[in-house]
Amino acid sequence: MIKVEIITIGDEILIGQIVDTNSAWMAVELNKAGFEIAQITSVHDDEQHIIKALNNALTRVNIVLFTGGIGPTKDDITKQTLCKYFDTKLVYNDEVRLNIEKLLINRQRAINELTLGQAMVPENCTVIQNPVGTAPITWFDQADKVIVSMPGVPNEMKMAMTTEIIPRLQRQFDTPAIIHKTIIVKGYPESALALKIADWENALPKQLHLAYLPTYGIIRLRISGISDNELALEFEINQQANKLSEILGDAIVAFDDIPLEVLVGKILKEKKLSITTAESCTGGNIAHKITEIAGSSDYFKGSVVAYSNEIKQQVLHVPEDILGQYGAVSAQTVEAMALGVRRLMQSNIAIATSGIAGPSGGTIEKPVGTVWIAISTSNETVSRMYQFSSNRIQNIERTTQSALLFLLEKII
Amino acid sequence: MIKVEIITIGDEILIGQIVDTNSAWMAVELNKAGFEIAQITSVHDDEQHIIKALNNALTRVNIVLFTGGIGPTKDDITKQTLCKYFDTKLVYNDEVRLNIEKLLINRQRAINELTLGQAMVPENCTVIQNPVGTAPITWFDQADKVIVSMPGVPNEMKMAMTTEIIPRLQRQFDTPAIIHKTIIVKGYPESALALKIADWENALPKQLHLAYLPTYGIIRLRISGISDNELALEFEINQQANKLSEILGDAIVAFDDIPLEVLVGKILKEKKLSITTAESCTGGNIAHKITEIAGSSDYFKGSVVAYSNEIKQQVLHVPEDILGQYGAVSAQTVEAMALGVRRLMQSNIAIATSGIAGPSGGTIEKPVGTVWIAISTSNETVSRMYQFSSNRIQNIERTTQSALLFLLEKII
Repeated sequence: MIKVEIITIGDEILIGQIVDTNSAWMAVELNKAGFEIAQITSVHDDEQHIIKALNNALTRVNIVLFTGGIGPTKDDITKQTLCKYFDTKLVYNDEVRLNIEKLLINRQRAINELTLGQAMVPENCTVIQNPVGTAPITWFDQADKVIVSMPGVPNEMKMAMTTEIIPRLQRQFDTPAIIHKTIIVKGYPESALALKIADWENALPKQLHLAYLPTYGIIRLRISGISDNELALEFEINQQANKLSEILGDAIVAFDDIPLEVLVGKILKEKKLSITTAESCTGGNIAHKITEIAGSSDYFKGSVVAYSNEIKQQVLHVPEDILGQYGAVSAQTVEAMALGVRRLMQSNIAIATSGIAGPSGGTIEKPVGTVWIAISTSNETVSRMYQFSSNRIQNIERTTQSALLFLLEKII
Repeated sequence: MIKVEIITIGDEILIGQIVDTNSAWMAVELNKAGFEIAQITSVHDDEQHIIKALNNALTRVNIVLFTGGIGPTKDDITKQTLCKYFDTKLVYNDEVRLNIEKLLINRQRAINELTLGQAMVPENCTVIQNPVGTAPITWFDQADKVIVSMPGVPNEMKMAMTTEIIPRLQRQFDTPAIIHKTIIVKGYPESALALKIADWENALPKQLHLAYLPTYGIIRLRISGISDNELALEFEINQQANKLSEILGDAIVAFDDIPLEVLVGKILKEKKLSITTAESCTGGNIAHKITEIAGSSDYFKGSVVAYSNEIKQQVLHVPEDILGQYGAVSAQTVEAMALGVRRLMQSNIAIATSGIAGPSGGTIEKPVGTVWIAISTSNETVSRMYQFSSNRIQNIERTTQSALLFLLEKII
């Protein structure tokens, strides 16, 4: 089994100014290619710290991938540090310069001494061109070990990983098959699910590993396995998934690790159903989640974000007396919103949300976190109440996920 | 200067199934309280790996904070590992059990043997109750060092950090002042900005450090400093920020590290202006970003997500001949959309977007990434064209940020 470590370089990560989303993406892609991430380490833009982390990583693994710290500005010192580590010097590289010039012409920008400085690269490395940024990727072979330094800018890193680094690593190392299968389960708290499937879990073959990943009303069960025999492993994992399916029945939402919005989109497309949303407390987030998926224009028509009551009335035609009698956060209002947007935008199905996202606006009867969600189809308009937390961002996200789950039930 | 290391435990991070957002949040809060993050390390749910990472961290720092790996299920082994490390055993804790029972009653769930197992805690530690989850926080003092294990569930971790862990650490350690000041700059590529401010940057006093953080059309410049004299440090940083302001003038968007949607919200509120959006390619993301901010109902009225042309016509009243003659992705359409939603929802200002988010749908004349953004006020309706990349998610995000930046220009 070939192990890899990721070292992310940058003060901005360690002071929390940016979230490291690169490592998770890299882990997924490396896993698919048969590599296992042994550790992820985030270090400062500091020579000693970088070298120490690299030395530590090399005691455990043969492949170390650096991201970040190679921009044109003074705070980035990774290139200089790697020169010191490999006892080499920076040399001018004409191909990198040509690449930078090409990029800057496309962006209608002039070259300057800092971007030009990106053409200086360590002498003993393999230089891999970066077609989407000015910082080149540098690849160092040291006996049987590989050290790669690449940009921290997500799209530059992704381009480099997909087109160059992973294929090169696969050529250089012998990789086994790693398979993860994720089963999405609804309706169980984590510990109740663990008890329900305890016998099955305890009987799992040794080469398989189970993990529980709970989020917002659903739990992802991940069965992982590693083997030199990919087909046998796949067969074993699928067999275990089938056994689990017999135990959990309808509680299983999907046998793939796909976001709800993708699953919902697939079903809507298959069934040729169109959808719209009328959103109050989710403020457009359901529409946003749905439209993040390429091809969503096949089933998504549009939304009304109705934050104020006047818009609920004037655009969605929620009757004034319903708002007056029951309030904006009620079964009656949210059902009228769903019906209203379905008629306005002429879709087969509509989702509506109304709730108190917080942190203020709660009452004793309707505390912060009280949310109503409605689904309207040509057959019925139904609604449910949910009680979430006092955290605004979480309430928006949980309402969005619950709405997609509610929708899934109705269309599956 | 008191250094802290964060160790996140969980296979799900190392296979990339979840992104570690906890560490960035913890770093921000710890920084504010005068602690510096020396390193962030992500390790597997594996006894030897956890112990090795802990030993390594303790050679560098006096405080190690663990997150994750303390759920009720079999894959979580942090508690047992810490018992081994501290040569102690698990003992039953009545307070934890009471806390679990209280929680489960509120959630209308029954206690089971797994949740009950959470009441078993290492004998030699200080147990801190977790008011929002079943896994308690465990705090270990070892000579002058502190090791804390807390849940990986974000809201449980945040509650523990804010109410218990940071205050306790501040009582136990002598912390200096750390100040970060972020200045948001628009209109410069990174290297051009670096050249523009090179003289100023080179003359910065030694105790200050500058970092460049570019995202989506703006660059955040972060000046950081550390000192035992908080007032003197604040004075010095503000003085440097003033000098920078003289150099960059109008290119400075803000002197705070706040998201654009917060800045825009503050100005709209101050100026008593209401806003609406008409979104095609952003699919509700602008509305979502605006409504993530608490209090946004003071200035945000609503949105129409008009994904299909029929909704652009029927709901936003974009004339059919404009759509026919110029297409949905055009100055004419996006301006009509902005005007349409401003009239429909009666707001002072409206933003509209229309573009080809991709990955498909592009033509030679209008390739993927072509986006039009319009702003309509009572004085004018204006639009701009943008050319982004071929990546859908990025195009949505960049259009959203560009729209907020365009809006900012018009209201500042």
